[in-house]
Amino acid sequence: MSKKIIHNARIITMNPNLDIIPQGCILIENGKIRHIGRECPDDADAEYTDAEGMFVLPGFINTHTHVPMTMLRGYADDLPLHRWLQEHIFPAEARLVTPENVRIATRLAFIEMIKSGTTCFNDMYFFEDIIAEEAQKAGLRGVTGESLIDFPTASFQSVDEGLALSEKLIRKWQGSPLIHPSVCVHAPYTCSKDTLLRAKRLADKYGILLHIHLSETQQEVEELLATTRMRPATYLHAIGLLDQNVIAAHCVRLDSHETDLLSATRTAIAHCPKSNLKLASGIADTEAYRKAGITVGIGTDGTASNNTLDMVEEMRFAALLPKVVHNDPEAGNARHALQMATINGAKALGLEHLIGSIEIGKSADLILVHGDSSNMLPVYDEYSAVVYAMNSKNVRSSMVNGEWIMRNRMLCHLDKEDTLENIKRLAQIVKP
Amino acid sequence: MSKKIIHNARIITMNPNLDIIPQGCILIENGKIRHIGRECPDDADAEYTDAEGMFVLPGFINTHTHVPMTMLRGYADDLPLHRWLQEHIFPAEARLVTPENVRIATRLAFIEMIKSGTTCFNDMYFFEDIIAEEAQKAGLRGVTGESLIDFPTASFQSVDEGLALSEKLIRKWQGSPLIHPSVCVHAPYTCSKDTLLRAKRLADKYGILLHIHLSETQQEVEELLATTRMRPATYLHAIGLLDQNVIAAHCVRLDSHETDLLSATRTAIAHCPKSNLKLASGIADTEAYRKAGITVGIGTDGTASNNTLDMVEEMRFAALLPKVVHNDPEAGNARHALQMATINGAKALGLEHLIGSIEIGKSADLILVHGDSSNMLPVYDEYSAVVYAMNSKNVRSSMVNGEWIMRNRMLCHLDKEDTLENIKRLAQIVKP
Repeated sequence: MSKKIIHNARIITMNPNLDIIPQGCILIENGKIRHIGRECPDDADAEYTDAEGMFVLPGFINTHTHVPMTMLRGYADDLPLHRWLQEHIFPAEARLVTPENVRIATRLAFIEMIKSGTTCFNDMYFFEDIIAEEAQKAGLRGVTGESLIDFPTASFQSVDEGLALSEKLIRKWQGSPLIHPSVCVHAPYTCSKDTLLRAKRLADKYGILLHIHLSETQQEVEELLATTRMRPATYLHAIGLLDQNVIAAHCVRLDSHETDLLSATRTAIAHCPKSNLKLASGIADTEAYRKAGITVGIGTDGTASNNTLDMVEEMRFAALLPKVVHNDPEAGNARHALQMATINGAKALGLEHLIGSIEIGKSADLILVHGDSSNMLPVYDEYSAVVYAMNSKNVRSSMVNGEWIMRNRMLCHLDKEDTLENIKRLAQIVKP
Repeated sequence: MSKKIIHNARIITMNPNLDIIPQGCILIENGKIRHIGRECPDDADAEYTDAEGMFVLPGFINTHTHVPMTMLRGYADDLPLHRWLQEHIFPAEARLVTPENVRIATRLAFIEMIKSGTTCFNDMYFFEDIIAEEAQKAGLRGVTGESLIDFPTASFQSVDEGLALSEKLIRKWQGSPLIHPSVCVHAPYTCSKDTLLRAKRLADKYGILLHIHLSETQQEVEELLATTRMRPATYLHAIGLLDQNVIAAHCVRLDSHETDLLSATRTAIAHCPKSNLKLASGIADTEAYRKAGITVGIGTDGTASNNTLDMVEEMRFAALLPKVVHNDPEAGNARHALQMATINGAKALGLEHLIGSIEIGKSADLILVHGDSSNMLPVYDEYSAVVYAMNSKNVRSSMVNGEWIMRNRMLCHLDKEDTLENIKRLAQIVKP
């Protein structure tokens, strides 16, 4: 059915006025939002959904993750980033990252993501073609790019090969309604200047997003200072890498000059508070970034360093941490946190024309949240209820491009039983 | 039925050896644990529960909360503690804290608590008799005490009256299998020395717990320094208030001398990480407290400053924050966090002989957690899965004193529909 009507909804639009419609109706036609308002059109051809007791809001946008790392959830915890990567994660990945395992782990990730209200994710990993395929099957929106890095990986042996693979995937997925190809280049401390610049040229050739890790740890800052005499963001700026088509994940250790550089170049940030705490990288000063005019979205990072893909919880950390960083309870309020998790995530990915708010003309990427639940009542303020009280199980239904991907917590396109059996079998191989 | 057998369980005992039984059985008789092991007794009189795919662990112990504040969840957010209390919470409470409203709000809190795996809570509020009554009806274990403070409250007009009421409640509830009466005295900055000491004498008369707020904010430290020339914990020690029967909530701002005082006197701490972030009070240094030998439990505080009663999420904050405070990812690991949420909570409340671990002779206060869920798989380490990946909806069943209080997410003794209707009506009165 191409027409859908959601009525009786408490609509949190996340539009520029932050309008809330206490009891409203949304008409969706061919995947797009055609009407939002108090009055409900009468249409015999439409599928009606009564959203009594529900909040309707834009789906969450996870601006930085490594989807198939679900296979390594809890594999190595309570370790510093560089030891964790070099001694545990990279060796395990060398053994485990096969097309088959990536497919299984991706399905597991999508189940968790959809059940916690994510409708769009920005991914950097290997075998991204499989991730894109599975996202399409699951009905999820994905920004996907093969992770370029200066050593052989499971999916390519050289940077030349990696770039060729990236371009092949861009050509394959360009124009898809669900998959937005990107170019991913791992980090300034793992990639040469040449690799970084070739990646950026490829992104520019197609006018698409460049996705990179940036200034995650103090060690990274020191390494870059030692090798380039510049801090990481200063270095990327100096080589001409930063602009409005770049999203930089983490940015925990930007100094004020680097903050100005990101602001001036309109580079966006994917803020990953839980991963940054877990690896003891630090707390990114999102209040300073917001005040500098930088677009900041929220990301979960991979489940090996989180260990969830739950954007509700991630948003809560993003809302609470600035208060203690600035010794100011008015920092990082509920409205800002929900903006980061929705419209600002869309802006950070260059998709704000399409998603991130409930507005006429945008794609219907939205979630129904059961506000009449024991952990959300009473509701004196909608943003407070969603940011400070909601949990992931309150997400009841979810759609992308106007198509349901979960209804009443039943997944529409994913086989949960089969996926869980497969992941248990895989775990046996990882750690018998 | 007085005998219950839970079999096929992955038992996380939280005993002193931190034993885990991968596939074990628990026999419960008259509310007590009588057998734990690999082999399962054959007993025609017992009720059998197959825990296939489930973790069984001690129920969470919320060591500091104000149960009926659910009525003010989201009422005033993003404000500093003293303004929040004086301008918003205290005036609203003056209007709203009636026996009837306390009863409704308490039921709402218990629904959320049970659904997120709490089996015991330590409360400080007004009309605690009603809270105790409702806990008994819900089957929850509670430590309850009327909040003594130096101004008239909804339940008493003077400290004399408050103390008389406290003693009346102690006599009424002493010896109850579910309710453990305590004496509560609000804080060193809201109570005179005389009130503090009279409260402590009352607690000592009955050999029960004294529950107090301590060193929550820098402002409190400065006020105490101005009035007593001592920091808050130093002051309480100087007047003879601190000993092993005291639990001090928050303790965000202890200096090293005060840490030593709490350690030497064996005073316990209720750590409330989310509330401390939300009110920008700071981050309590639980690693330092643990290393000093202080018993630290976890508390949610009330929902007006959190805004949830979810111990799973609270435990996650407690596990992650020490890493960034100490710039060390090995700080605050998963085992320590789960100890804080269970056995150390029991110790902090003086109830470790009864609860906090799955051991023979203890009360069967335990929860069944669905480990075979999309957000917890794969499980390479049980503590990691529970502390870093689990969420509250993974709690499937729960018992206290060997009696089920939730089975397969259905509450056994609480009327959810009726409670939610009542809380919605109450919210209309609070903010029409």
